[in-house]
Amino acid sequence: MSEGEPILMRRDEAGVATLTLNRPAARNALSVALMTELEAALSAIAADASVKVVVLAANGPAFCAGHDLKEMRGLAGREAVAAVFALCSRVMTAIVRLPQPVVAKVHAMATAAGCQLVASCDLAYASTGAKFATPGVNIGLFCSTPMVALSRVVGRKQAMEMLLSGVPVNAATAESWGLINHAVDPEVLDGEVAAMARLIAGKSSHTVKVGKEAFYRQLEMGLDDAYAHASRVMTENMLAMDAAEGIDAFLEKRPPVWRGC
Amino acid sequence: MSEGEPILMRRDEAGVATLTLNRPAARNALSVALMTELEAALSAIAADASVKVVVLAANGPAFCAGHDLKEMRGLAGREAVAAVFALCSRVMTAIVRLPQPVVAKVHAMATAAGCQLVASCDLAYASTGAKFATPGVNIGLFCSTPMVALSRVVGRKQAMEMLLSGVPVNAATAESWGLINHAVDPEVLDGEVAAMARLIAGKSSHTVKVGKEAFYRQLEMGLDDAYAHASRVMTENMLAMDAAEGIDAFLEKRPPVWRGC
Amino acid sequence: MSEGEPILMRRDEAGVATLTLNRPAARNALSVALMTELEAALSAIAADASVKVVVLAANGPAFCAGHDLKEMRGLAGREAVAAVFALCSRVMTAIVRLPQPVVAKVHAMATAAGCQLVASCDLAYASTGAKFATPGVNIGLFCSTPMVALSRVVGRKQAMEMLLSGVPVNAATAESWGLINHAVDPEVLDGEVAAMARLIAGKSSHTVKVGKEAFYRQLEMGLDDAYAHASRVMTENMLAMDAAEGIDAFLEKRPPVWRGC
Repeated sequence: MSEGEPILMRRDEAGVATLTLNRPAARNALSVALMTELEAALSAIAADASVKVVVLAANGPAFCAGHDLKEMRGLAGREAVAAVFALCSRVMTAIVRLPQPVVAKVHAMATAAGCQLVASCDLAYASTGAKFATPGVNIGLFCSTPMVALSRVVGRKQAMEMLLSGVPVNAATAESWGLINHAVDPEVLDGEVAAMARLIAGKSSHTVKVGKEAFYRQLEMGLDDAYAHASRVMTENMLAMDAAEGIDAFLEKRPPVWRGC
Repeated sequence: MSEGEPILMRRDEAGVATLTLNRPAARNALSVALMTELEAALSAIAADASVKVVVLAANGPAFCAGHDLKEMRGLAGREAVAAVFALCSRVMTAIVRLPQPVVAKVHAMATAAGCQLVASCDLAYASTGAKFATPGVNIGLFCSTPMVALSRVVGRKQAMEMLLSGVPVNAATAESWGLINHAVDPEVLDGEVAAMARLIAGKSSHTVKVGKEAFYRQLEMGLDDAYAHASRVMTENMLAMDAAEGIDAFLEKRPPVWRGC
Repeated sequence: MSEGEPILMRRDEAGVATLTLNRPAARNALSVALMTELEAALSAIAADASVKVVVLAANGPAFCAGHDLKEMRGLAGREAVAAVFALCSRVMTAIVRLPQPVVAKVHAMATAAGCQLVASCDLAYASTGAKFATPGVNIGLFCSTPMVALSRVVGRKQAMEMLLSGVPVNAATAESWGLINHAVDPEVLDGEVAAMARLIAGKSSHTVKVGKEAFYRQLEMGLDDAYAHASRVMTENMLAMDAAEGIDAFLEKRPPVWRGC
């Protein structure tokens, strides 16, 4: 990292905000400073109607190495440690609660809380050379908060294998287990993520927002409550302007013009 | 559709009731009339001891295109819209709650609430040429009720990919994600479904009923409650006549004769 | 089984306790005697600090055929039947609640409660020749308690296919569905399981214990509660001696020396 370069970069283009972890020499370890920047950036994006979709990317030889161990080891006492994990959990849930979809672009190794970042995103694309690991067990510190996100996207035995062994899995395995959407050749990763981001950016942001929010809420309900909730959401969605426009446009075989409401 | 042909057909044979969506020109869109017929047919089957298993099939170029958009767009006000989604949710949960297993036979495209129908069935077989999509996002109307069923059979990231992109997935992908049981060549689809239906129809209908009901109930419980519930169910099942007969027949190496109780 | 040979054998080596089902002539059917032995063995291991990991293996032509049907059929009345399923559920949850990870080594067919044993273990490796089935439906006795474990490791439609059809699936399919971690050639099964057991035995037993316990607890919570719980667990884990040692060793590029606390 050059002197003065930000540890988190944001670039906006055509409704796509790209957040890039930029501590390459530290393998983008999630220091308190970087997590604080991430939390602030996500908070700003949540309130920014110009952003339709977020891409989470990283610079350097790793996607993200997890917590900053030197910093962690220097913390004094329970309160200080708890504050770091609380901050980390806020960042991860901020991704899930963000009105806009978040797409991880994983060009290289994602470890521990770095793997949790990937698991927490709505979508994830990875280079075939990327790897995924929850190796906290190797240093006596089980990846307990990463497993919250991990165990909600991969099966129990597969999550346990990663957590108990600490052994990395490759991108093809991560795809077959459900941790990522697709493993693609490194040279097409940027293009694939950009294409998906553009595709989603072309949808009604109002529709996407209510849909994403309902998705995660109904997942925590039983079937009857889930249907009651989703039916309410879909009824309101149907009465909003973008659905009226979208259906009319579809029936009239013309492209819709979204108003975002 | 010929004049006067029913929009939902039922044919019974050897304990297998086949319900066939029959609005081919409308790609079997789930109009209020068709959903009302489905609800009535499922209700009749629930009370019909002669039916051991249900096959849900469809006529025409699509399996089911989801809600009838022209009809939806003509609805006046919140109450009317809510009533349609409530009816749809009742039909979908009626499949889950039906005493008999329901097998989807998907010969072609299943979209939105059509994809939800497939996701809601206990088993699903599809032609290799079938596709699955939740494209509501393209018309400003997120597939919020379809995602209740979808997100309970495929992983989160895979469900999100379908919901956010609206892009169809093919049958092989649907199989690898868990949305369907098997993708088979079109020319063997009828035979495969018939064979599975016959196989299940040969089991004790009492046993299948208590098992199916317990399956979905215990899924919504924590581990201890799930075991307590399943143990109660299995104890009663063991004391019923069909289990006594089944175990005796097994130990005596002869075929069992079910009484359905 | 030779006269006097125990129906459950335990062998300890280098922190790995191997429990071997040893009713080969009965295909290791889970008689009340065998389940009672299993419960006692797991209870003893839970309190034995020398054991870091458990391997669950079996002798003979089958891994485990499930309940002992002759014994079951001879039970007199509801109380006696309920007691057997309660004992079985205690054994299965004892595996999940055991402080040490449990690895199933499945060399051959696992049926009904035998399949449940595999599904209940934290990890499972199987010979490519092994098969898995929940065929209770064939004898009028739906595999209701096995499905509690099965439906938590494989998808709904895949579980339903096994439960409704009773048809066995092979090891490759079981791997792709998530029921086992890996299907391996029969001649390398022992070696693969031993390598994974040794790998896990080399971790801090304190770390593994708190991680395993938190894994299953947070799975039953909503996202916010899960993060709150996992953050508390990880904070305490970070303050324990093995994490301090592990992180220091990592930063100093030397192997850690665990104290198990």
